[in-house]
Amino acid sequence: MNQIEIMTPGKIIVGCGCSSRWIEEAIKAEYKKIVVLSVGPIWPMIEAQLSEAAEKGLKIKKLDYTLVGEPTTAYFEELRKEAAAAKPDAVLGVGGGSVLDIAKLLAALSDRKTPIEKCFGKGMLEERKIGLFCAPTTAGTGSEVSPNAILLDSADGEKKGIISPFLLPDCTLVDADLTMSLPSKITAETGMDALCHCVEALMNKNAHPIIDTAALKGIELICKNLVKACRDGRNRPAREALATASMLGGLCLGPVNTCGVHALSYGLAGKYHLSHGLANALLLPEVMRFNRPVCLARYSLIARVLGMQVGKDNERNANMAIDYISQLSVQCGIPQHLSEIGIKATDIPEMADMAMNVTRLLQNNPREITREDVINIYENIY
Amino acid sequence: MNQIEIMTPGKIIVGCGCSSRWIEEAIKAEYKKIVVLSVGPIWPMIEAQLSEAAEKGLKIKKLDYTLVGEPTTAYFEELRKEAAAAKPDAVLGVGGGSVLDIAKLLAALSDRKTPIEKCFGKGMLEERKIGLFCAPTTAGTGSEVSPNAILLDSADGEKKGIISPFLLPDCTLVDADLTMSLPSKITAETGMDALCHCVEALMNKNAHPIIDTAALKGIELICKNLVKACRDGRNRPAREALATASMLGGLCLGPVNTCGVHALSYGLAGKYHLSHGLANALLLPEVMRFNRPVCLARYSLIARVLGMQVGKDNERNANMAIDYISQLSVQCGIPQHLSEIGIKATDIPEMADMAMNVTRLLQNNPREITREDVINIYENIY
Repeated sequence: MNQIEIMTPGKIIVGCGCSSRWIEEAIKAEYKKIVVLSVGPIWPMIEAQLSEAAEKGLKIKKLDYTLVGEPTTAYFEELRKEAAAAKPDAVLGVGGGSVLDIAKLLAALSDRKTPIEKCFGKGMLEERKIGLFCAPTTAGTGSEVSPNAILLDSADGEKKGIISPFLLPDCTLVDADLTMSLPSKITAETGMDALCHCVEALMNKNAHPIIDTAALKGIELICKNLVKACRDGRNRPAREALATASMLGGLCLGPVNTCGVHALSYGLAGKYHLSHGLANALLLPEVMRFNRPVCLARYSLIARVLGMQVGKDNERNANMAIDYISQLSVQCGIPQHLSEIGIKATDIPEMADMAMNVTRLLQNNPREITREDVINIYENIY
Repeated sequence: MNQIEIMTPGKIIVGCGCSSRWIEEAIKAEYKKIVVLSVGPIWPMIEAQLSEAAEKGLKIKKLDYTLVGEPTTAYFEELRKEAAAAKPDAVLGVGGGSVLDIAKLLAALSDRKTPIEKCFGKGMLEERKIGLFCAPTTAGTGSEVSPNAILLDSADGEKKGIISPFLLPDCTLVDADLTMSLPSKITAETGMDALCHCVEALMNKNAHPIIDTAALKGIELICKNLVKACRDGRNRPAREALATASMLGGLCLGPVNTCGVHALSYGLAGKYHLSHGLANALLLPEVMRFNRPVCLARYSLIARVLGMQVGKDNERNANMAIDYISQLSVQCGIPQHLSEIGIKATDIPEMADMAMNVTRLLQNNPREITREDVINIYENIY
């Protein structure tokens, strides 16, 4: 076994109704001023807890996240100014992956002048002096438990990662009640994103038995509950299962991370500003097919946790797993072809160039991916 | 699902050869003076890394753990004085569960005057100002990732727990190479202890799907590797599997904890000073039998991860699981009867009284245990 490092938030609280528990943590830590970053439809859901916090003596500064699409470096700098003016003791992010990524960066950087562009890469943040709480409102990115934040660089339009232990929250609140009103489309796309985190950790060159365990549980929970939650958003057990799975997928990101799917998805999303989950969902089955020759035993593990009749023929088991995941995507109403969502075939070479730049993820892929392979994959799902 | 709180060490590093990596962490944290607590046979194994640390400018104060048997409050107070005199920035514990428990308490309390007796219970420690590293040399207690420390109270001879987030290490190093020379007997007893952590989390009243995942993986790894490691201590893959399983078992302790087995084991070990692992091993199959009526589905999960032919008859599945674990204990050479290890039948009532005092664990048991039940269980394995 290779050595791995597992770093998680100081505390992870899981369970319906837990999202207000950052208040007791903030009081225990003797914080006085909290910047709360959230977004339009979420504010009414957390109004009661913000009032409770104010009653208990916490000063709350609300910061409204209004950007549509993936977060950019330019938008981060705007928010940083606002957050810095409040001089908070802690930041609370309540939202999807974009909101949480920005909240994490605000906690690490709002009291500093370092330009955000200097922080790209691994281990470039120096410290984090103020507290950080995260509560996800989608079940997808796993940002609530990962040391990663992803931004679109406003300078060149490419998606870039900032990876640092200082981006791990002090306390994460996984409360499926916050996800109950998510529309079916977003439920599907974010759920497929979480599935990618799990599958990519499992087929990863740096896969590790401990992380496999989390990944396989995540895969099981998503495959058994995603269609249910897409069809009936009020299905609370399904929502709980997905919130848990998303957290498990997030736990895969730090020690192992993603590989081919996310790399190629950055090519797509960088050029077309698709939602991150949709881009990943489109690519997952095809990248699984590309990796199949070197992943037969791994995919058989997926077939097994899905309760399929696995036999000794790993090729057959692997195909069953790929088919299942491919069908899951269809049943959730996700488009299956790039042409369906307005992507131009003539852009494929440029998208491939962008994907080939994501070397930090490509190098995790269990099978080497050349530029030609990338083009083939995009064309196969065109 | 019930709400749970998961708290883990700041960083968990897993892998053969990783045990010296506390040095880079200590340097990163700008620590200068480290108290190292370890024990006779371990010192030669870590001599090279202590020299390396000294060469890199760290001042090392070695503290030799010489007590035989379970750690006592009186012995802790002795070591606290020695540690306090060194005024360390951090404590490193390298040893079995007793050494790690004491190292954790030294980190939290060596710079304080609070008598240790005032710390018993949950949440009674105020803070921890100095760093804490732990490297287990047995695969059993899971102390390296748990917020617990257990001491024999020198005043009344009872085992008591101190549970606090401040007992979680900053960095834990799970290095199976440190366990390679463990004698077969200790391998067996500590391995059964780790198995108890997993099984008791699974059958626990507060069981949670996320923790179930860790518990089931731990059970699988132990059941498939414990006999191998007992027969050939140099079997490195088996040692790695057990070290991983022990860590997974330890992760169950904070959010869910143990139940009937550990409660009754405290009765045994309090009176007879048996090794903790042996006391648990003796009790595990019988407490599983006692809980069977309310744990059929849970035990079936165990049978499934062990690769047994599970059918729809959960009673049959459950019996297979209990038989497997019972046989595993036999195959590892563990005594199966209290009479074999010199326990007097006439002491059973007193042992039962001690067990009934462990209400914090008894209340976790899925089936209510009366004093009469406790006596029956002890008698059944007499």
